[in-house]
Amino acid sequence: MNNVQHPAMGADDVIATMKAMGTRARAAASILATASAERKHAALIAIADALRANSAAILKANALDMDAARANGISGSFLDRLELNDARITGMIEGMRTIAELPDPVGTTLAEWDVPSGLHIQRVRTPLGVIGIIFESRPNVTADAGALCLKAGNAAILRGGSDGYHSTQAIHACLVSGLKAADLPEDAIQMVPTTDRAAVGEMLKGLNGNIDVIVPRGGAGLVARVQSEARVPVFAHLEGICHLYIDKSADLQMALDIALNSKMRRTGVCGAAETLLIHKDIAKTHLAPICEALIAAGCEIRGDEVVVKQIAGAKPAVDADWDTEYLDAILAVKLVDSLEAAIAHIEAHSSHHTEAIVTADADAAAAFFKNIDSAILVHNASTQFADGGEFGMGAEIGIATGKMHARGPVGVEQLTSFKYLVRGTGQTRP
Amino acid sequence: MNNVQHPAMGADDVIATMKAMGTRARAAASILATASAERKHAALIAIADALRANSAAILKANALDMDAARANGISGSFLDRLELNDARITGMIEGMRTIAELPDPVGTTLAEWDVPSGLHIQRVRTPLGVIGIIFESRPNVTADAGALCLKAGNAAILRGGSDGYHSTQAIHACLVSGLKAADLPEDAIQMVPTTDRAAVGEMLKGLNGNIDVIVPRGGAGLVARVQSEARVPVFAHLEGICHLYIDKSADLQMALDIALNSKMRRTGVCGAAETLLIHKDIAKTHLAPICEALIAAGCEIRGDEVVVKQIAGAKPAVDADWDTEYLDAILAVKLVDSLEAAIAHIEAHSSHHTEAIVTADADAAAAFFKNIDSAILVHNASTQFADGGEFGMGAEIGIATGKMHARGPVGVEQLTSFKYLVRGTGQTRP
Repeated sequence: MNNVQHPAMGADDVIATMKAMGTRARAAASILATASAERKHAALIAIADALRANSAAILKANALDMDAARANGISGSFLDRLELNDARITGMIEGMRTIAELPDPVGTTLAEWDVPSGLHIQRVRTPLGVIGIIFESRPNVTADAGALCLKAGNAAILRGGSDGYHSTQAIHACLVSGLKAADLPEDAIQMVPTTDRAAVGEMLKGLNGNIDVIVPRGGAGLVARVQSEARVPVFAHLEGICHLYIDKSADLQMALDIALNSKMRRTGVCGAAETLLIHKDIAKTHLAPICEALIAAGCEIRGDEVVVKQIAGAKPAVDADWDTEYLDAILAVKLVDSLEAAIAHIEAHSSHHTEAIVTADADAAAAFFKNIDSAILVHNASTQFADGGEFGMGAEIGIATGKMHARGPVGVEQLTSFKYLVRGTGQTRP
Repeated sequence: MNNVQHPAMGADDVIATMKAMGTRARAAASILATASAERKHAALIAIADALRANSAAILKANALDMDAARANGISGSFLDRLELNDARITGMIEGMRTIAELPDPVGTTLAEWDVPSGLHIQRVRTPLGVIGIIFESRPNVTADAGALCLKAGNAAILRGGSDGYHSTQAIHACLVSGLKAADLPEDAIQMVPTTDRAAVGEMLKGLNGNIDVIVPRGGAGLVARVQSEARVPVFAHLEGICHLYIDKSADLQMALDIALNSKMRRTGVCGAAETLLIHKDIAKTHLAPICEALIAAGCEIRGDEVVVKQIAGAKPAVDADWDTEYLDAILAVKLVDSLEAAIAHIEAHSSHHTEAIVTADADAAAAFFKNIDSAILVHNASTQFADGGEFGMGAEIGIATGKMHARGPVGVEQLTSFKYLVRGTGQTRP
């Protein structure tokens, strides 16, 4: 598993290798499912220690990946995501310690009640089983995803992008050594040992029922492939077309701060705002200051007719702008006639990830909350709070926009299932 | 929609009809999602009243189906499931009233907390969207499934078996009249107007994203087809291979009562026991009385070597018996060396539906609960309590053995999703 070359495999070998990984993952999952909270905690601390002890080796492996990427002409944000440095390794280590200290979800009672037959019914958390994670360039996903799965008592099968191959292998070696140190099966976190794309296809088919859910982490292309081909459930969002609506009673300074933060704090994250809607009654007071602040911060404005007329430098928006996730310093801006019109626009164009309203009117906020069916709705705060860490979940493996099982940030609890425990005193059913 | 002939359609017509139903269901779902609890309650009461007022018409329609079924040589339990009578119609009406009086799940707060940034986060229930229900002969599923979906704020697309066509159409007419009476869209509960099997194929493809989950209600053949072909999530169990384990400390009378009830109360339900495991240390005292009581009640025993030797009339079990859902008065019986051996047998052969242990030993029950990963685990009570009504859920649309979203009885709450509502005071993210 610690190959430092991209191994080449024949198609039959890929299939056999992947199926064998699935079988081993299922066996490891059944041991992890009943592993004590202390043992999982110990493994996570040992992983953090191993990452610290091996940080030079990880940086060296990363340098190989960075050199290869540069040689392939890769640059910009992709190269940034691929890069590791001391601060990022420290961040990864702190992440392991944070996850280690989260409450153990397995065995937690979710609800309990008595029924007229005299039975006592209890619903308790159990692990989901085996989680497949398919990710692109960020090598730190190896540690984050592996640790979250482990904490929830799941086995993980990780498949990273070929560009980060050496980095992910070096990080994975630390995960394995942490598992061993805590006497947990090393198959609990496996890394696909080939960059052959056929391996992804096998994972999407579920490895003979040995993968319970797939989490894709990467661009819309990867997520779209996973969503359309997967024969197992998927936790993902395809896009984050997030909206910010400034209602007529919005305080100007608050609206300006939240607009600037929602768009410009980080433009490449899924919780970044992509469309700004402003109530027409406050266009005179709010539109110019907000757009000018955004432009001053380096944001391009693509506006409707009125916006283009009133804001120097704004470009006219075309239809496609209302359905685009820019992931860049570009914002579509539109005036709306009413709260209802804002809600209708959002329901028509949103990807159901995160939408925010700025308003001093509690009824307007309540209507926004009630009538929009997105995973996260925000009143008087930035859309960029859409994050498992900010939600107090400790860490997240991603954000889901599907309606099944996990929706919004996917943290440790969302990686669990449950079972019912029924206690009687000899009851038979009439 | 009130055709009383099985309508024939060309393949293109089926596709167009189904896609149009999906579009209408989505539109209805968005109205239902924000419909008040009172309005949904009123619709359910109006449906109950309509079923009462039209019971003669329903019985007449059912007589057509019964005559056709008999002419086709259908008999036995299938004919029994198809048949409606006054008692069954009264049961259906009472079911509507029970569901009407359940607490409305939509908008319920599931959890809420504050985070260090000062945001208040709330997780509230929302409807899932559009539920597709594919069922076989039982006409009462029309009312039960439609009502459960409605209560949870979902639209439903129902597709019943061709044998019950007239009965389901007559019941569906009552659902539509109840929806109209409460001023809710009649598209909220649609019935597929053709018995063409291609309609099922279209539903399994998800009608252009307009079905969020499929619930199959019927035999293993139907469920297997749905599970293998569906491109949308499925709530189902393929089989209920339920186990009853009699531990060495079990009280004989309790063990006997529970064994008899678990197997013989109703042999055709998914929660019926199919395998009985008995600890070898109590074979002398418990095996004969339990098996003789079962045989006296009309049950066939298929036993391992020791059982066949000790029980007159027991047939030898073959390997396949340990993996068979008989749904009949047949029970596989095996002696095990230990609690651990019982757990290992169950983990190897169970369909992860329901397993029960009879024991006076709390530690043995705890180990059974911890180490078996089935949807429902029972201590000192019959496996036949595996039922949403018995769980206090009011009613169920079925029992799920998958680990995602819904597991165990699928009642009103399991037909919901959730969203996060985040309240701030102007927070921006650092």
